[in-house]
Amino acid sequence: MRRVTESDLDDLAIGAAILGTGGGGNPYIGVLLAKQAIRAHGPVELVEGGEVPEDALVVPSAMMGAPTVMVEKIPRGDEIIRAFEALQEHLGRPITHTVSIEAGGLNSTTPFGVAARMGIPLVDADGMGRAFPEIQMVTPTMYGVSATPMALADEKGNTVILETIDNRWTERFARSITIDMGCTAMIALYALSGRQLKESMVTGTLGLAEELGRIVRETRAAHGDPVQAVLQRLSAFRIFAGKIADVERRTEAGFAKGEARIEGLGADGGATLALRFQNEHLVAVRDGEVVASVPDLIIVLDAETGEPITTEELRYGYRVSVLAAPCDPRWRTDAGLELAGPRYFGYEIDYLPVEERFGAAARA
Amino acid sequence: MRRVTESDLDDLAIGAAILGTGGGGNPYIGVLLAKQAIRAHGPVELVEGGEVPEDALVVPSAMMGAPTVMVEKIPRGDEIIRAFEALQEHLGRPITHTVSIEAGGLNSTTPFGVAARMGIPLVDADGMGRAFPEIQMVTPTMYGVSATPMALADEKGNTVILETIDNRWTERFARSITIDMGCTAMIALYALSGRQLKESMVTGTLGLAEELGRIVRETRAAHGDPVQAVLQRLSAFRIFAGKIADVERRTEAGFAKGEARIEGLGADGGATLALRFQNEHLVAVRDGEVVASVPDLIIVLDAETGEPITTEELRYGYRVSVLAAPCDPRWRTDAGLELAGPRYFGYEIDYLPVEERFGAAARA
Repeated sequence: MRRVTESDLDDLAIGAAILGTGGGGNPYIGVLLAKQAIRAHGPVELVEGGEVPEDALVVPSAMMGAPTVMVEKIPRGDEIIRAFEALQEHLGRPITHTVSIEAGGLNSTTPFGVAARMGIPLVDADGMGRAFPEIQMVTPTMYGVSATPMALADEKGNTVILETIDNRWTERFARSITIDMGCTAMIALYALSGRQLKESMVTGTLGLAEELGRIVRETRAAHGDPVQAVLQRLSAFRIFAGKIADVERRTEAGFAKGEARIEGLGADGGATLALRFQNEHLVAVRDGEVVASVPDLIIVLDAETGEPITTEELRYGYRVSVLAAPCDPRWRTDAGLELAGPRYFGYEIDYLPVEERFGAAARA
Repeated sequence: MRRVTESDLDDLAIGAAILGTGGGGNPYIGVLLAKQAIRAHGPVELVEGGEVPEDALVVPSAMMGAPTVMVEKIPRGDEIIRAFEALQEHLGRPITHTVSIEAGGLNSTTPFGVAARMGIPLVDADGMGRAFPEIQMVTPTMYGVSATPMALADEKGNTVILETIDNRWTERFARSITIDMGCTAMIALYALSGRQLKESMVTGTLGLAEELGRIVRETRAAHGDPVQAVLQRLSAFRIFAGKIADVERRTEAGFAKGEARIEGLGADGGATLALRFQNEHLVAVRDGEVVASVPDLIIVLDAETGEPITTEELRYGYRVSVLAAPCDPRWRTDAGLELAGPRYFGYEIDYLPVEERFGAAARA
């Protein structure tokens, strides 16, 4: 157990946005909200997965919806508490811990606000080891953990509780409600015991995020190459370097969807990378050939500063480095690929682990 | 208090479908489900509004969605019990009575199944004195009664609980969920005390419905004019008689919307009546001139048998009599017209009470 203070959060949010592969919300808004809560309610106790009692009642807390909208519709901070309290009342017993559902700028820090305000510890874990756009896309789904009861709350004061027959139905209802709520909602779901958490979640995500953020900051301060430093820490591959030439985006059925076209520079000069996203970067296609896809992590960093660029921040003219990092091995099983492989998202391609596409020789 | 048995239900469902002004579901399906429940669990205790204790916890139960779909997707019967029990658990205390939310073939009889299965009395009242397509359109809304907490359940096993800031938001969320559930859902909402029930609901609706059904049946048996008998009992006006020439319909945003064109016969020969509906008949336009509109009741009866014709049953060739009857006076207030007047439904016309349009001279 350790205490997380305001100053620890900047590194953590940057690192989480790197793991968020373009999704999971804006890190600055996330940090802002978490700092506000810590300032008002004191530091947050961060505990390791192993420290959580078997019979704990752990509830992940998060933002749902199109992050494009979230940039303009900043949460007040109490929506998530209302979702959390509505779920606690529905469960009929006190929630003992909260945890992140995904790595991402906003959704790694959202639970800090809950932990600070509710006075409960935060577990260093998440449900993906990255970010994904749909509710059922978490490792607990593979272990039979139900997403419901789930609570949703908006900034107007509405709350909704779902009890569904499977996690795909949770996604369906929650997506409709989120759209009605104005394309973003604060959510509490996947209530699990300490035992279930240890078995089914990805542990150590927040620690890794903080480390990644620190690496970027320190490497930059030492005039090193922050992109290279991130790449080494994640055993990732540099799949492209270039300048964003074009971004086509649309908000569709509550998702921020689109495609960015990147024109190569340096060794990639003359080549083009098409980056397709739906909240997160999903598939990278170089001159018509797939070079990386979900569930592996496709990470877009500012080529100079190493700062992660979310899908909603992709802009003409940015010079970027695109990395691909191996995902949690559970995503590579049949069950994992069925949940979040490229075919689920409508891409008729077979998943190939990024290490197999690039091999040791290609490592930068 | 009296006991309602299987045989009482046929008259009641026919009369309720007359008051349902084309909506509120198919009376035969409603009766079928209610009879099943009474056969399995015994007769239902029907109590007058005045018999309900002030501190009773009364919960209306109903079907929500496009009745067009309900005809092909018959409820199993236990969906409404799951909605009811989910709401009871959420409220944290036993529900003592149930009641109809609207008059209509299905929604007058739905609460019989709940009363029989749960072993609680049914109150002779409803929230409209007719049927309306949207959740907030009930007299309790005018008295500040909240539609939430509201429970929805589908035939697959999903349930949803809503807590909204007003009854328009309830409608919005519930409509989305109903569409996701397959365009119909079973619902429990508008929990109210006995005191609130007496103040804000329309009492005696089931008794009136049973009487109307009996009048139709007995007048037909005596070779009388059942349309005329209904008209007299409701102080209504015969606004048109003719043959359905054309029906245009669509299911849109979870509603059964459309328009029927009726060619006049007899005294109405040469004239055409356009009947616009959204689950219920909303506006009747004779040769371009509005002759009746919500909130007054526009009732379509088979010209021979006096049986009510729901919007989903409107078919080419039917010979029909169209009646207009005065609504509950509360619908004629500013608050009532704001909730369910013609302008709410997008018709740029002023509401004129049907008595003023037709006057005593026009009464058939």
